[in-house]
Amino acid sequence: MRERFEQSTPAAEITGRIARLQRSLLESEIDAALILQNADLYYYAGTVQQSYLCVPARGEPVLFVRRVFARARGESPLREIESLSSVRYLAELVRERCGVVRRLGLELDVLPAVHLHRLLGLFPGVEPVDIAAKIMRQRAVKSPYEIELQRQSAAIADGVCARIPEILRVGLTEAAFAGLVEAEARALGHEGFIRMRGFNQEMFYGQLLVGQSGTVASYPDTPLAGPGLSAAVAQGVSMRAIEAGEPVVFDFVAVRRGYITDFTRMFSLGPLPDEVRRAYAVALAVQAAVVECAQPGVSCRELYERAVAVARAAGLERYFMGVGDLRVRFVGHGVGLELDELPVLAASDLTLAEGMVFALEPKFVLPDLGAVGIENTWAVTANGLERLHHSGEELRELALSE
Amino acid sequence: MRERFEQSTPAAEITGRIARLQRSLLESEIDAALILQNADLYYYAGTVQQSYLCVPARGEPVLFVRRVFARARGESPLREIESLSSVRYLAELVRERCGVVRRLGLELDVLPAVHLHRLLGLFPGVEPVDIAAKIMRQRAVKSPYEIELQRQSAAIADGVCARIPEILRVGLTEAAFAGLVEAEARALGHEGFIRMRGFNQEMFYGQLLVGQSGTVASYPDTPLAGPGLSAAVAQGVSMRAIEAGEPVVFDFVAVRRGYITDFTRMFSLGPLPDEVRRAYAVALAVQAAVVECAQPGVSCRELYERAVAVARAAGLERYFMGVGDLRVRFVGHGVGLELDELPVLAASDLTLAEGMVFALEPKFVLPDLGAVGIENTWAVTANGLERLHHSGEELRELALSE
Repeated sequence: MRERFEQSTPAAEITGRIARLQRSLLESEIDAALILQNADLYYYAGTVQQSYLCVPARGEPVLFVRRVFARARGESPLREIESLSSVRYLAELVRERCGVVRRLGLELDVLPAVHLHRLLGLFPGVEPVDIAAKIMRQRAVKSPYEIELQRQSAAIADGVCARIPEILRVGLTEAAFAGLVEAEARALGHEGFIRMRGFNQEMFYGQLLVGQSGTVASYPDTPLAGPGLSAAVAQGVSMRAIEAGEPVVFDFVAVRRGYITDFTRMFSLGPLPDEVRRAYAVALAVQAAVVECAQPGVSCRELYERAVAVARAAGLERYFMGVGDLRVRFVGHGVGLELDELPVLAASDLTLAEGMVFALEPKFVLPDLGAVGIENTWAVTANGLERLHHSGEELRELALSE
Repeated sequence: MRERFEQSTPAAEITGRIARLQRSLLESEIDAALILQNADLYYYAGTVQQSYLCVPARGEPVLFVRRVFARARGESPLREIESLSSVRYLAELVRERCGVVRRLGLELDVLPAVHLHRLLGLFPGVEPVDIAAKIMRQRAVKSPYEIELQRQSAAIADGVCARIPEILRVGLTEAAFAGLVEAEARALGHEGFIRMRGFNQEMFYGQLLVGQSGTVASYPDTPLAGPGLSAAVAQGVSMRAIEAGEPVVFDFVAVRRGYITDFTRMFSLGPLPDEVRRAYAVALAVQAAVVECAQPGVSCRELYERAVAVARAAGLERYFMGVGDLRVRFVGHGVGLELDELPVLAASDLTLAEGMVFALEPKFVLPDLGAVGIENTWAVTANGLERLHHSGEELRELALSE
């Protein structure tokens, strides 16, 4: 290879992450973990090159690389990186480096069944242990380094948002509008695809939904989904032309150096109906009620119940986070290397901890009118929350140019 | 739900697909299949709404829908569609509809290990059987209806390609160039995300790679990958500005109504080095050699060997489909609802059949210069191949406007 690959993640970050994983393995009497999935590989090894990261409960981790070795070696700050010519040699190499492994930690939430089966064939007698919950709990708490990357990610959403008044116009299709917005994002360094952990979960840049499109529910576990261009995709924009007086939901996921932030602002061309304005004010009140209360030690359940209480007091509970049966039962979700991380602001006993980063997205779906809401990504600090986005939160009813 | 969802796939298509799957289940003495993954659900049920499609080896399939029931019922032409309030009731419902199931067909290549574990907990004593290969062999052969959708998908790539001479200019970053191209695609109805079946496989619109970027290998199993904006993504465009005289690889994946096509054309601003021109001529010769020979009954191995032979005769084997150790060992791949389908034009004994659709992508990676190649998506007909793309295949050395 003639190109030199730059190390992406500081060595101290990786060392700290591995050490925390090792403590967690020791507590559960797991002899070693084998990390395979892209987001987790990036988190613990600093590279997504095709590899197996072996982390013994004690001692030095080793990255066994199938493809591309030179790139993995350039990108990862790990000290021990070896080329793996065939997966057949994996068990022998793991034994050499980590000794006898009886209980092996694996990402069983994402590892396909046949891959697990083949892997266990290489390690006869080994007991597989699911370490997905350990990994997701660890990854939920971001370091100052990670939060800084999320600030940069948030800045992409802010930058794109600032351009919307120049882009949005009557007669543009939702799809064409999305394309123009996405082109702005790409020029600012948006990395494109958005990783999600859940099986069958998919997301493309977020949901730019105008008027009725905001009311169309679908398979994703999200308050808004949209019609999509076909039943094959079944979410996101349609080919419908944007009209005056419709609520424009700019729900946008940014990605920078792998780190995701989630963001929503509201626009329209010309004045919006009073019901939409009022629901937006309630969304801001929900956000304020949650932010006021959120700090380390507070449970997700308490935050979620506060959010629902504000919606209920305003007479809008039935439209909160979807309509009726299709309401999703959360008001926020962790974001990081994947869009669907912990904490989930739902009826859950998980408590906030300093360093957690989540998107808070109070939204209402108003039948016949559209969707309306606000979303920011927040970092939990020692005594409250830091908002990672800097865009104003006003409802932007733009003048009609035509 | 007030909106009405349009049925997307004709009932006769779905009926035929289910019947072929049932024959295959009977042959392997599998009592029923349970289909869960989005692409497969769309193929057999015409919807990607959260559901379990139960296909007994004999009798009527039933779609059990978790979310969104009204949308699944609107989109799917299946006769039997039921709402499933909790997955706990699944086993009972399957027993009611399909009788006793001893061997249950599942997509074990994509189903995460914990999902399989939970599912088997609901069906005590049932033996899971991997039906991924059956599904992928069936899906490899497209109907005339599917090929027509792929023609429409190919038309998006053609449409975007026609606009490149207006978009491409010196000084634009690769990322900004990609954004402008992608915006064109969105306006034409490109659906955005590209489904891939392989674990950890990811792709964002293809690879728009200019000059040196075309020579940077990475984790995907593709001849070209590119630097990407960070080690987290590690493929695709960089923030490098486009210069005159560099080969511009426009490798673009289009998606329309779920159906994928894959396409590559070459551009430059100003004249290209002779080595690039010559390698491009060899890529065309490789394509011609494969196309001349491809028809039902011919093995993938024969096609792959022909391709390599042309590259070898031209003295370019070492740069064919990557450089040296990083060469990928195929020259084409099936495309359909996923980008990584059968047939793979590699050293494989699979033979072509009428209705198969594949992308043929002879490419060379020239160190210091960039990548160069051609790619079209082709449908296998009774006596040869139909090219689904209509763009010309000439190397487009555009005049420098500055």
